[in-house]
Amino acid sequence: MTEQKKMSRIGVFDSGIGGLTVARELISQFPKTDLVYLGDTARLPYGAKSPETVTRYAVRCVQFLIDAGVDQVVVACNTASAHAIPTLRTIFKGIPILGVVAPGARVAVSASKSGVIGVLGTEGTVSSKSYPRAIHALQPDAKVLSLAAPLLVPLAEVGWLDHDVTRLALRTYLEPLFESAPDMDTLVLGCTHYPALKSTIDAVCSSLDRPMTLVDSAEAVTAVLAPTLQDSKARRRICVTDLPDRFHRVAATFFGDTISEVEHVDIT
Amino acid sequence: MTEQKKMSRIGVFDSGIGGLTVARELISQFPKTDLVYLGDTARLPYGAKSPETVTRYAVRCVQFLIDAGVDQVVVACNTASAHAIPTLRTIFKGIPILGVVAPGARVAVSASKSGVIGVLGTEGTVSSKSYPRAIHALQPDAKVLSLAAPLLVPLAEVGWLDHDVTRLALRTYLEPLFESAPDMDTLVLGCTHYPALKSTIDAVCSSLDRPMTLVDSAEAVTAVLAPTLQDSKARRRICVTDLPDRFHRVAATFFGDTISEVEHVDIT
Repeated sequence: MTEQKKMSRIGVFDSGIGGLTVARELISQFPKTDLVYLGDTARLPYGAKSPETVTRYAVRCVQFLIDAGVDQVVVACNTASAHAIPTLRTIFKGIPILGVVAPGARVAVSASKSGVIGVLGTEGTVSSKSYPRAIHALQPDAKVLSLAAPLLVPLAEVGWLDHDVTRLALRTYLEPLFESAPDMDTLVLGCTHYPALKSTIDAVCSSLDRPMTLVDSAEAVTAVLAPTLQDSKARRRICVTDLPDRFHRVAATFFGDTISEVEHVDIT
Repeated sequence: MTEQKKMSRIGVFDSGIGGLTVARELISQFPKTDLVYLGDTARLPYGAKSPETVTRYAVRCVQFLIDAGVDQVVVACNTASAHAIPTLRTIFKGIPILGVVAPGARVAVSASKSGVIGVLGTEGTVSSKSYPRAIHALQPDAKVLSLAAPLLVPLAEVGWLDHDVTRLALRTYLEPLFESAPDMDTLVLGCTHYPALKSTIDAVCSSLDRPMTLVDSAEAVTAVLAPTLQDSKARRRICVTDLPDRFHRVAATFFGDTISEVEHVDIT
């Protein structure tokens, strides 16, 4: 990427808290960037909702970010990335809109030696087939096996990150996936919640004797954004659509001292 | 209850599919009653959302049911019952509005010999303290121990009703609860999803050598409604706020052949 217009205020949108993994990665690599984060906590989760409903919510969320003055939007939510990107780009023509699926697919294709790639995601992300499509666009002969793992979001939400229940759920999901693809060497964490479970997923893969390269969309999308960002005053806004009490507690564990408050915005 | 006005068209509202346990029980006992069901699937789940947001959603859902011609409303969702009943009764004065918490509390008090009662519920239901309040209003010396069990809804939603992961999650929740209350003999299933897990909860209680009387709010609320219902033409409407595809598949397992279609209604 060359000669890109430099952006000074980036908007990050997620159904809830998971997108903070993207925001945290951005802030850690580009500490002087302005950032507005919006978590649609009043309507989360998006994972099992219809493409039409997720798209309708995404349009309102991106409109909020644009009204808040951002000049670029990252759709950190994999489900919204899977369903809504074409509509968002049609409606908001002047604003670059970046999803996490294409960057994740690019990293997965680079990482996989065998060309056999697994994708864990929500029901919506998996049924959209957006990861296989994005991977095949880069490597037509890649073999992609996608698996909806709907319990991983609630397990991460309740904080059972390294818990027997989580390990058993992961084994239940991964064992048949690995059996059906002996050459799989790369696993895409196709939901912004999953990086919170990364070390447990890694341990379960090893315990099944199937070590995997895990692809984290937060890292992937940050690499794509890097050339587009320019320094600003490091102003941060964290906004949510439900009242912020619950979100604020969890956000603090992601952002430490860098956020002073979480704002409630009524766009629902 | 005597001399109650008889109702011919009942509205049942839930955040999603769980309230079908209430609707099914009503239809099974009163097959000639008219019924309009509304599942707010576009905004589910309510369990971890703020009282203010849940109340705002509940107001819109009840308004929809009243516009659809119901003359009585059952709030089948425990979280909405816990947060929204006073506001709903203030706004919709002419319409009887019945939650599930008071009927569940009544059955629990009748069932418990020891007066030590456990309540499993969502974060919202537990933090509202509505079950302890309702139980103490009937039996001031009862001892009530409430536990948020947020994973049970997603476990029921994904259909892992009798699964090792579900049993392990239940043991994780119930073991410390039972240890802290050796005399507990009754457990309120304080969420409309939990009756789907009833036989597994029963089995886990037995495996911990702590058999419990399980209180199902669907049965409890039906008993309260019985004297108020009168026969009609058994007209049924099942409405949801997200597109109905996913809901319809699961609804069929609850209602069998008695529903021909699920309608999408846009109130979000």
